[in-house]
Amino acid sequence: MKAARLHAYDQELSFDEVDEPQITGPHDVIVRMGAAGLCRTDIHIRDGDWRVAQEGAGLQFPYIPGHENAGWVHQIGSAVSNVEVGNTVILHPLVTCGLCRACRAGDDMHCSNGLFPGLVADGGFADFMKTGARNCIKLDPGLEPKDVAAHADAGLTAYHAVRKAANLLYPGTKAVVIGAGGLGHIAVQCLKALTPAEIIVVDKSEAALKLAEQIGADETVVADGSHIEKVMDLTDGQGAEAVIDFVGERGVEKEAPQMLRRAGTYYVIGYGGALDLLTHTMISTEISVVGNLVGTYNDLAELMTLAAQGKVTLHTATYPLDAVNEAMADLDGGRLQGRGIMIPPGAAA
Amino acid sequence: MKAARLHAYDQELSFDEVDEPQITGPHDVIVRMGAAGLCRTDIHIRDGDWRVAQEGAGLQFPYIPGHENAGWVHQIGSAVSNVEVGNTVILHPLVTCGLCRACRAGDDMHCSNGLFPGLVADGGFADFMKTGARNCIKLDPGLEPKDVAAHADAGLTAYHAVRKAANLLYPGTKAVVIGAGGLGHIAVQCLKALTPAEIIVVDKSEAALKLAEQIGADETVVADGSHIEKVMDLTDGQGAEAVIDFVGERGVEKEAPQMLRRAGTYYVIGYGGALDLLTHTMISTEISVVGNLVGTYNDLAELMTLAAQGKVTLHTATYPLDAVNEAMADLDGGRLQGRGIMIPPGAAA
Amino acid sequence: MKAARLHAYDQELSFDEVDEPQITGPHDVIVRMGAAGLCRTDIHIRDGDWRVAQEGAGLQFPYIPGHENAGWVHQIGSAVSNVEVGNTVILHPLVTCGLCRACRAGDDMHCSNGLFPGLVADGGFADFMKTGARNCIKLDPGLEPKDVAAHADAGLTAYHAVRKAANLLYPGTKAVVIGAGGLGHIAVQCLKALTPAEIIVVDKSEAALKLAEQIGADETVVADGSHIEKVMDLTDGQGAEAVIDFVGERGVEKEAPQMLRRAGTYYVIGYGGALDLLTHTMISTEISVVGNLVGTYNDLAELMTLAAQGKVTLHTATYPLDAVNEAMADLDGGRLQGRGIMIPPGAAA
Amino acid sequence: MKAARLHAYDQELSFDEVDEPQITGPHDVIVRMGAAGLCRTDIHIRDGDWRVAQEGAGLQFPYIPGHENAGWVHQIGSAVSNVEVGNTVILHPLVTCGLCRACRAGDDMHCSNGLFPGLVADGGFADFMKTGARNCIKLDPGLEPKDVAAHADAGLTAYHAVRKAANLLYPGTKAVVIGAGGLGHIAVQCLKALTPAEIIVVDKSEAALKLAEQIGADETVVADGSHIEKVMDLTDGQGAEAVIDFVGERGVEKEAPQMLRRAGTYYVIGYGGALDLLTHTMISTEISVVGNLVGTYNDLAELMTLAAQGKVTLHTATYPLDAVNEAMADLDGGRLQGRGIMIPPGAAA
Repeated sequence: MKAARLHAYDQELSFDEVDEPQITGPHDVIVRMGAAGLCRTDIHIRDGDWRVAQEGAGLQFPYIPGHENAGWVHQIGSAVSNVEVGNTVILHPLVTCGLCRACRAGDDMHCSNGLFPGLVADGGFADFMKTGARNCIKLDPGLEPKDVAAHADAGLTAYHAVRKAANLLYPGTKAVVIGAGGLGHIAVQCLKALTPAEIIVVDKSEAALKLAEQIGADETVVADGSHIEKVMDLTDGQGAEAVIDFVGERGVEKEAPQMLRRAGTYYVIGYGGALDLLTHTMISTEISVVGNLVGTYNDLAELMTLAAQGKVTLHTATYPLDAVNEAMADLDGGRLQGRGIMIPPGAAA
Repeated sequence: MKAARLHAYDQELSFDEVDEPQITGPHDVIVRMGAAGLCRTDIHIRDGDWRVAQEGAGLQFPYIPGHENAGWVHQIGSAVSNVEVGNTVILHPLVTCGLCRACRAGDDMHCSNGLFPGLVADGGFADFMKTGARNCIKLDPGLEPKDVAAHADAGLTAYHAVRKAANLLYPGTKAVVIGAGGLGHIAVQCLKALTPAEIIVVDKSEAALKLAEQIGADETVVADGSHIEKVMDLTDGQGAEAVIDFVGERGVEKEAPQMLRRAGTYYVIGYGGALDLLTHTMISTEISVVGNLVGTYNDLAELMTLAAQGKVTLHTATYPLDAVNEAMADLDGGRLQGRGIMIPPGAAA
Repeated sequence: MKAARLHAYDQELSFDEVDEPQITGPHDVIVRMGAAGLCRTDIHIRDGDWRVAQEGAGLQFPYIPGHENAGWVHQIGSAVSNVEVGNTVILHPLVTCGLCRACRAGDDMHCSNGLFPGLVADGGFADFMKTGARNCIKLDPGLEPKDVAAHADAGLTAYHAVRKAANLLYPGTKAVVIGAGGLGHIAVQCLKALTPAEIIVVDKSEAALKLAEQIGADETVVADGSHIEKVMDLTDGQGAEAVIDFVGERGVEKEAPQMLRRAGTYYVIGYGGALDLLTHTMISTEISVVGNLVGTYNDLAELMTLAAQGKVTLHTATYPLDAVNEAMADLDGGRLQGRGIMIPPGAAA
Repeated sequence: MKAARLHAYDQELSFDEVDEPQITGPHDVIVRMGAAGLCRTDIHIRDGDWRVAQEGAGLQFPYIPGHENAGWVHQIGSAVSNVEVGNTVILHPLVTCGLCRACRAGDDMHCSNGLFPGLVADGGFADFMKTGARNCIKLDPGLEPKDVAAHADAGLTAYHAVRKAANLLYPGTKAVVIGAGGLGHIAVQCLKALTPAEIIVVDKSEAALKLAEQIGADETVVADGSHIEKVMDLTDGQGAEAVIDFVGERGVEKEAPQMLRRAGTYYVIGYGGALDLLTHTMISTEISVVGNLVGTYNDLAELMTLAAQGKVTLHTATYPLDAVNEAMADLDGGRLQGRGIMIPPGAAA
């Protein structure tokens, strides 16, 4: 089969002919890839930012990146009972054991024995990939792999944070979404679907804000230095019950808590920066700061329901898999509108 | 009546003869003071650390500090229906409006119109003080003002944080209490009463740890530089589901999150320092940081139930009110064992 | 002022000239009535069905019914701080003490000292009525008393049940609403605003179902004997996560639990019948049955937000107050489309 | 191996020599039995009360009952990673798929593909039994199979209900436990471990009540006809926040809700009777009725923690497995004090 592989850090990916993955365990599932989302993490991986994690996991080069995957079940292990050959599926990104306390509580991301294909094992930039039965979610007939692949990580992460926030968002509350890019524009749609809150979107890009308005933002604020003040104005000087931050760096993580109402909650999704919050501020306003890590299997299944109902749609730009380096350059250079989706040769045929 | 008053910042309190407070509104309650707890905040007030808040509220000097108050109902306004003259009461520290959204949800500390006697109005270092009907909780006949007064703020704050943490603490979980002093030793007892968690107490003082063991700590750890490592050992290298921090300064606020298990929660109660948490840490372990501010009226009522049942007891040292400066010196100098309790002349008689 | 009064059970209401209510306590609020909803309970009251409750409360005839009230603040007691003369307000139906455990937890309906005007004291079928400060919710300028009065009880009750159910309703779940009349058609709109659930409405009336479809029902089922089967078909043979029953009598209360999915919840709002559920059914499917009683002050405030946002609208038919008996006859005779709204002479002027 | 088998309904079990179970699937686990609890359900099975369920599942006679099982891992399938041969284990009673929505949410009892050994497949009245990897919970070294086996169903069911109730039970609340037998006496200990509630136990047997007092009941009430009244007296005429009913038949299910406080919750565990509750009662007091079905894998793991900590202990009477009919006669005849525990020949050796 064909696959895009990384042979060494700081190199472009190489489009190689490689052996197809094989079933070796009873829960294994081989998926014929339909589409794989391109994530900024793929650039970080290429640039060696994940070296420690990859070496720690014993990853051997060359290997196949790609962790936002959807396609069709091609072959199944002897103990797989939840999918059949031919099913269209999206894949939860973490291969989990199903046996630890976290798995038994539905907290997939905290599995004691999780494996993340695309990062520490071969992923989905290929004609076929190997995953587990526990990763497969059957898609509604109305959904195609290329339309949803990016939900496997980007969408799931946005949905997971929104679902937590939804518990606090009753009529009359305000939710601030910082960053209306890949994840943020999904979050806006999820907030709209799950809550009656008024949605205020903050971003540097007027184009991104325009899109945000079209998909459900009630108010948009250009991040031009006056944005904290504007958010306070839009919240009667009180701040918002929830601030959902998809940036988490370059000072945004310092600004975000300033937009909170007393007893409000700051949801951290983007990263790269550091909190710098006085403990006195934490207690005198009784705010909370909540980390968010991808999401659960059931979260992804719920998100697929919203996608099937047309309540959440992705803006994408497709590339043939052999153009992956071009796609990465476009992403890096800010030329990629929407989420980049890689289509392997087998699916394009 | 007699009262201990602050005439200017950085001065000792003065023991003065002053007019008794009068009923002026329909919800007013005049309480004959039985006991008032001495809090480190009272020292901060004397030293001018709360100048901004006090000036902002228009406080006039001299005024009467004291915000941990209990006594007997002496006189009631025309609309007071929940207490009668002669009732023994403990007083929730915040005078609230009862009409805003927060009050209507039971979130007393977030009242839009709250007033904090002892800080921005006359408090309880006196023979009588004025409070509101909404502040009064009738005491079980087995409880005396001097035994519970310090619960009005210190105990309430500890209880409120423990009650939040209790939601996460099922059998097999671990709770770390940092700081086994005034609030911490109440928290240990509340954890014991409310949860099946194993309780690990961290403190610099071996004496404080010894007390902690007697009142319910399962494990104690001296904060000698190896304490993070020891907590990790006591939690099978995983960390604790809850870390409850009554220090919140001097670097403790940096150490505390390091003792958390994946998906764990750090409860901030002590203050003075600043969080310094990478957003990458927040998301990769999916931890939460939760601020805590005093507690609700119902929290205090519940704590009084625990006190009446003998499940939570305070370690106190009583002083006559005219020895308040001595008590403050003892507290400041580390010579005060347990919580200092001021007894006004009228109650001592 | 003018008022419609009941002089004796089983008689028509009489349109009388009576004294205006007076401020007697510090929290009292006199409201100039703008509109009062007519409720089936008013017919039950006239027919003596509430005799026991009314006599138990010492109600003297003649008295003024009307418990769904909205208007303008006319006069306020000395301690009222949340509204001013001239404010447009809707009134929470229960006058509460604000001091008991339930009130302090925001559970208004379980106030230990509640008083229900319109049932055990004079209500809103008049030019003026007396209520309390705790009952007043200021209306958005876009809302008029006649458009929202019926929310004070009917809407609030529907909203309260939906808000409980919303906790269980994630994408892909189904909610069955039984009875698409006065309360049910509000519930459908609230479900739409608060949850991503698919909404299935069951009613005997095709006209009611048609309206339900226009305001958000995803599926409608005529209650013709095959409705349980049809609901099971619409839920893949599994049943619904939530069944919200606005009938609760005439056998509906026996049918409703049969539409539940395993671990589902049956919300009882309508009444008149009796549950007849085997304990074996309760445990083998692990279902819950949840009673619902009106709602909280904050519930009503949230519903007013939805009304102001245009997300929940009432279908009404207005009558001048002196036509109240005609309105009651129309309601009793099934000739009243939407909720009947009484307009007192003062408001009509 | 030796096994006690049922050859036909209404016959005694026969002590037979049978083939040992074999590993056939990758998740299979063969357990060398240490102990199996005897449950009233085993008598019902023998008497044919479960004929429909057993025939529906295609069960062939003779078969081996026994669904409260603990022992040592004897052999494991190729994909089993959570236990090793030699581990001491208790077995969750339902063999689950791990793949359906319920399993992925930790709701084991609602698995779409569950299998209940001892009821519809061979169970634990034998030297060996076959279960799944997902059923095994490793025991603390301080626990022996015979001490905990009955927790696998009886204890788990009691714990599951208490854990739900614990959410409502803050200091000052009351919990009524009806039936202080096999499950009830575990519930009392679980309530003590998890909550600060006052525990009131109601039973017909003075001996059972005496035991209840020793293990944590605060108050005991003989069910002699005056028990509802006595519970009301013990709850200040208000009723209890939680009523946990382990009888559920013979009229107890009619009495239980009468002991509820407004907004209280009735937990149904015992069965055999039928609820007869007016919908008017449900709504006017806003009570809830909650069914309870066994419990989750994590519930059982938590209960094992309480057992290892000595917080929950079982009162048992052991019998060699070949005396199973005698044990059943003792249970049926009311001569069995505590839970009957069958010890197979292999474990007794």
